[in-house]
Amino acid sequence: MNTAAPALGLLLSAKVDRAHGPRLDALALDAGVRLRRHRVEDADPARIDVAFFSRDLYEGSSLRKPGPLSDAFFRVADAAPGLRWLHVCSSGQDLPQYAHTLARGVPVTASTGVTAAPIAQTAVAAILAQSRGFDRWLASQARREWQPLTGDARPRDLSSMHLLVLGAGAIGQEIGRLCSALGLGTTAVRRHAEPLAGFDDVIGMAQLDDALPHCDWLVLALPLNAETAGIIDARRIALLPRGARIVNVARGELVDEIALTDALAAGRLAGAYLDTFTEEPLPQASPLWSLPSVWISPHNSAASLGHEDRVVDCFADEFQRWLTRHATAFSTPKS
Amino acid sequence: MNTAAPALGLLLSAKVDRAHGPRLDALALDAGVRLRRHRVEDADPARIDVAFFSRDLYEGSSLRKPGPLSDAFFRVADAAPGLRWLHVCSSGQDLPQYAHTLARGVPVTASTGVTAAPIAQTAVAAILAQSRGFDRWLASQARREWQPLTGDARPRDLSSMHLLVLGAGAIGQEIGRLCSALGLGTTAVRRHAEPLAGFDDVIGMAQLDDALPHCDWLVLALPLNAETAGIIDARRIALLPRGARIVNVARGELVDEIALTDALAAGRLAGAYLDTFTEEPLPQASPLWSLPSVWISPHNSAASLGHEDRVVDCFADEFQRWLTRHATAFSTPKS
Repeated sequence: MNTAAPALGLLLSAKVDRAHGPRLDALALDAGVRLRRHRVEDADPARIDVAFFSRDLYEGSSLRKPGPLSDAFFRVADAAPGLRWLHVCSSGQDLPQYAHTLARGVPVTASTGVTAAPIAQTAVAAILAQSRGFDRWLASQARREWQPLTGDARPRDLSSMHLLVLGAGAIGQEIGRLCSALGLGTTAVRRHAEPLAGFDDVIGMAQLDDALPHCDWLVLALPLNAETAGIIDARRIALLPRGARIVNVARGELVDEIALTDALAAGRLAGAYLDTFTEEPLPQASPLWSLPSVWISPHNSAASLGHEDRVVDCFADEFQRWLTRHATAFSTPKS
Repeated sequence: MNTAAPALGLLLSAKVDRAHGPRLDALALDAGVRLRRHRVEDADPARIDVAFFSRDLYEGSSLRKPGPLSDAFFRVADAAPGLRWLHVCSSGQDLPQYAHTLARGVPVTASTGVTAAPIAQTAVAAILAQSRGFDRWLASQARREWQPLTGDARPRDLSSMHLLVLGAGAIGQEIGRLCSALGLGTTAVRRHAEPLAGFDDVIGMAQLDDALPHCDWLVLALPLNAETAGIIDARRIALLPRGARIVNVARGELVDEIALTDALAAGRLAGAYLDTFTEEPLPQASPLWSLPSVWISPHNSAASLGHEDRVVDCFADEFQRWLTRHATAFSTPKS
């Protein structure tokens, strides 16, 4: 390789540079491209061609408030006049720090699917644990009370319960697969009704209202957009059978949170697991914090130590594809 | 059928009599035997040949203290001079109310396996929920605190965790199958090492000490007997790696509860799910009630609405087999 050949400037974190630099060099080399790795700390925006917003740079950020590591990264990326591509660690492109890149027409790719397995496992953990009675056992435990669930208070058999999963992307599919293995009946709601592994049944959005009265668990695993915002409104919450439960591992804005809170407080819904809220952090005054059988995690359902590495794997795959398409054009000296 | 022919007297609950009487009649008829069903309320001990201690009669009982329904049933059964067989709803024969029947040499069969699926689901619910972080999320929620698990506090990936199941009966096997489907590595410990579906590895009891240092979850699913009492003693608890967790859905006496409590209080073990204890109900003063990441259910892991029916199914199967062996002898007029 001729070191005088044009090189590709990659903006990345020091941590990824240290742990994965040689692997990324090798991918570039395979495509006939020399890689210049620029750590955020000492990067010259003028020399950046592609940028990788890795998971370690997200630490300290929340959905709505970028943290200092994120700020430092985007100070460089947003100032890079020649930025051609940004790969981000999140599964969506709806984080505020991506707005500038998107606005100037630079392609942004997300780490879609990277969080699917842990998010699905978290959702299924809540479904299984509440279905078996842990919501009530743990409430009794907090009062040091030995209160077996007996008679009609006992949980229904898993095999008699039905799960309705709204959204059949990577997360929804994995939830269906796992719940199916646990013996629950499963229906997916997606734009167009087409059979899907892990689901007994797949229906289209138009049939949603017909399906709501027959589910024991309603799981939200939809992206948030103009069509889906507020999709579970007060009317649809009222269509759920008495004693149904809700899981939201997607976005708080999909649900009418006030109607949901009312239905839970009134005991019409028997429980919920909520990871996302219309306002995050969930305000201290929210009644959701202390409603019986409502479990809350702080927009954290994807948390797992293997996350960083899965994001790097996803970037590496995307990078390889990107190089295939752009290497030739790129090898040509830039004007 | 000649109504003057000898009849088989079955002691059963009014509830089972109402819901399943005709089905039991039919089984007897198939074997050429006329069935006389005697409800507990108005049974003459002298006319009872077989007795079915169904699940509904256990309501109000605990492991050590029979309740009033159980007392009423055994007042009749224990007084029946011709009792030839007792089928019981529990999965073991170690309940105090069976002692008299066993002592006089009457065969007792248990509803083995009937609780396996719900107990395994409960154990897996706790394993999955704590593995994903719900122990810490729910503790934060109780304080109305939005505290995402970040950095090194994030949960390990399920695929990097290893489960060691002590006892490979129906419950242990189902726990292995489900955890394997969730991506955990699984090892079973049983008397003799033989391959088993749902387990990556099966080892013999002699290898237990070698396996303990390598498991993230130790699950107790063993029957209690002279060999297994105290099997998880202080020395073996000390062999577990720092941060390991324990599940006991078997019997409290399998574990040195004081050593376990100490290891949890010291943070050497990261968590536990305990359904059984050396003293039940667990005394109010037990430190286990309030240790972080210790989940307690009140000897209730099998709770499920379908339980009664599964016990009846089990009895019906056993009854059919029993009739095959005893119908002829039985049809002979008794002296």
